[in-house]
This record gives sequence, C-alpha cells and structure tokens, in this order.
Amino acid sequence: MTHLHEERLASEQVFKGVLLDVRKDRVRLPNGGESVREYVVHPGAVVIIAVLDDGSLLFENQYRYPLQRDFLELPAGKIDPGEAIETTARRELLEETGYEAAQWRHLGVMHPCIGYSDERIEIFLASGLQKVAAPSLDHNEFLDVLTFTLDQAVDAVRDGRITDAKTITALFWADRILAGHWK
Amino acid sequence: MTHLHEERLASEQVFKGVLLDVRKDRVRLPNGGESVREYVVHPGAVVIIAVLDDGSLLFENQYRYPLQRDFLELPAGKIDPGEAIETTARRELLEETGYEAAQWRHLGVMHPCIGYSDERIEIFLASGLQKVAAPSLDHNEFLDVLTFTLDQAVDAVRDGRITDAKTITALFWADRILAGHWK
Repeated sequence: MTHLHEERLASEQVFKGVLLDVRKDRVRLPNGGESVREYVVHPGAVVIIAVLDDGSLLFENQYRYPLQRDFLELPAGKIDPGEAIETTARRELLEETGYEAAQWRHLGVMHPCIGYSDERIEIFLASGLQKVAAPSLDHNEFLDVLTFTLDQAVDAVRDGRITDAKTITALFWADRILAGHWK
Repeated sequence: MTHLHEERLASEQVFKGVLLDVRKDRVRLPNGGESVREYVVHPGAVVIIAVLDDGSLLFENQYRYPLQRDFLELPAGKIDPGEAIETTARRELLEETGYEAAQWRHLGVMHPCIGYSDERIEIFLASGLQKVAAPSLDHNEFLDVLTFTLDQAVDAVRDGRITDAKTITALFWADRILAGHWK
C-alpha cells in the first residue's frame, strides 16, 4: 500500500561482524517527516519439516547463546551466497541430522523479525527420509537430534517447551499439509 | 542440556542506536574451543489476538522498512522499561487500534529470532472489545487497522498474504484456543 511507504534517503553500515551486518538508514516517512531505521541484513534461511516413514518429525535441541539456553526447533540453516534454496535445505538436513530425503516440496516463506531484520525463511517439507551419515556440523555448532510426532510437537507448544517462532510457524503449515487440509 | 552450554568469556557493545543494541561476545564452546556470538539485545514485546464480538480479529497493515513493503500482522509492540507485560498489551492495543478490552488472558511466549536476538514476544488474548478512541500512533509509526475472521487469516497464511512469523505463531494459538481444543 503506497500510502504507507517509507523512502530511503541515506544508508550506512554501522556494524559488520562475523554473523551480523547492521545498517542504519535515514528515511522519509509517509507524512513527509524524517526518521531513522536500523536493521539487520540477513542472507535468508530455510526450515525443514522432515517426516520419517513412521510419521514422526526430526527436531533438534540447540543452545542459543542470545537467550542463554537450548531450544527445541526444526532443522534450519542459512542460505550460502548464490545457493539455490532447495540446495540449502538438502545440505542443512544432511549436515545437521545425517538424513537425505527422496521427496522435497517448497511450502512457503515466513519473515521472523520484520521490525529489525530483512530475514526470510523458506519452508520445506521433506519425506522419504534415509539416514546416510552421521551429522557433520560446523566447528562452532553443537546440537542433539531427536524425533517427535506432530501431536507431541503441538503439545510441546502448549506447555512452552517449543517457543521458537520459525518452528511453530512451520508446524502451522505441517499440521494442515500432513492432515490433508492443505494440498 | 548442560552439554550444549556456551560460556561467556567477554562481552562488548558494538552498536547502540535509536532502536538496536548489538553485542559481540567471545564464548567457550562445549568442546573447549572458542567462538564469537553477535546478537541484538531487545526489551521484549507483546502480540495481541484481539477478538471482536462478531468473532473476527483485529489486524494491521504496516510498512516494514527492512523488507521494503507492508505486512499484514496482529497488533504488537515493544515493552517499555519496567512495564508489566499486560500493561504493554493494553497500551499497544489502544494506541494502535483505539480499542480497549474487558478480558485479557496471557497465553504464552514465543522467541522470534533465537539465532541473533534475545527478543521474546508475550502472546495475549483480548476479548470484550470496545472502540474508545482513534488510534494515537508514535510520530514515526503509520498503519491501517482491518479485521479478518480466523478462517480468512488461515487462508491468508496459505496464499502468502500473511508471512510474519509472530502473527502465524499467535494464530497457531488462536486456532486452538478459540476452537476450545486448548483451554
């Protein structure tokens, strides 16, 4: 909606680290005034709903330093520069869990943090899974792989064991796709 | 799980802007090695499932500068320093939509961006709504208020009109609470 548009007047990189790229822009507001917008520039990511032959889903338990605790989440990872998103999904599933999938389907996209990041997360459904290797994680990545049925995962949202928004958003899709309510 | 823990060795503020507070920490990894973690320190936020007497939900259309487009999302906003979360929820709903609610219920919490932010979003259900004022937005905030039924909102997720993860996560809760599947 064009009447809400904010126009970029100037853009400055204020931090460039190993992971984070932070920008600060001066913008023209819809009412003609000026303001500042600060945000993270992100390469994008994928999240994978990986369904085993018995119907259960692959999950990970991973320590997330910003919150100083571990989180129960679906397999996910960042898109490498120039990488096709399905390639990212296949690579991350293999690296993090040791599984390959015969069938891949792209379901949709979500935006986890629209207030201060341009990150998008592409949602994939993987089935026909086969364990082909041990996980091969990055040097600074540590996680445990575990499985839950969809019902167990939904219960884990209700009782607060799953609070990661990308995981719950992907479960919103999984719930409808796996029940056949969404084609 | 303690075997995944990462210990803080040093912490440095690398950017402090109007909105963003970015830190860079040196950490001890579970295998004894060292790494760097960069992340946003956030005051926390609320998101509100506001149910009108006819069963429809209040939504907002808001321009989100990092992604250079407007998003369909539930009412939400940041917690002020020292503010009780229900106070934030009441304040944000009134400021952004002009509505007050007679009944408030805290449903749970989500974490939108566990890889690089400590943000938490508290999920509230509001009912017994009454329009008491015009919206009174911050000087740099512009949005349109609209309503959707839950079914319309779910359809909007499927066809990609709703991609905001905090909104979809809150709809995951709303779907079960409003249908009576979760008490």
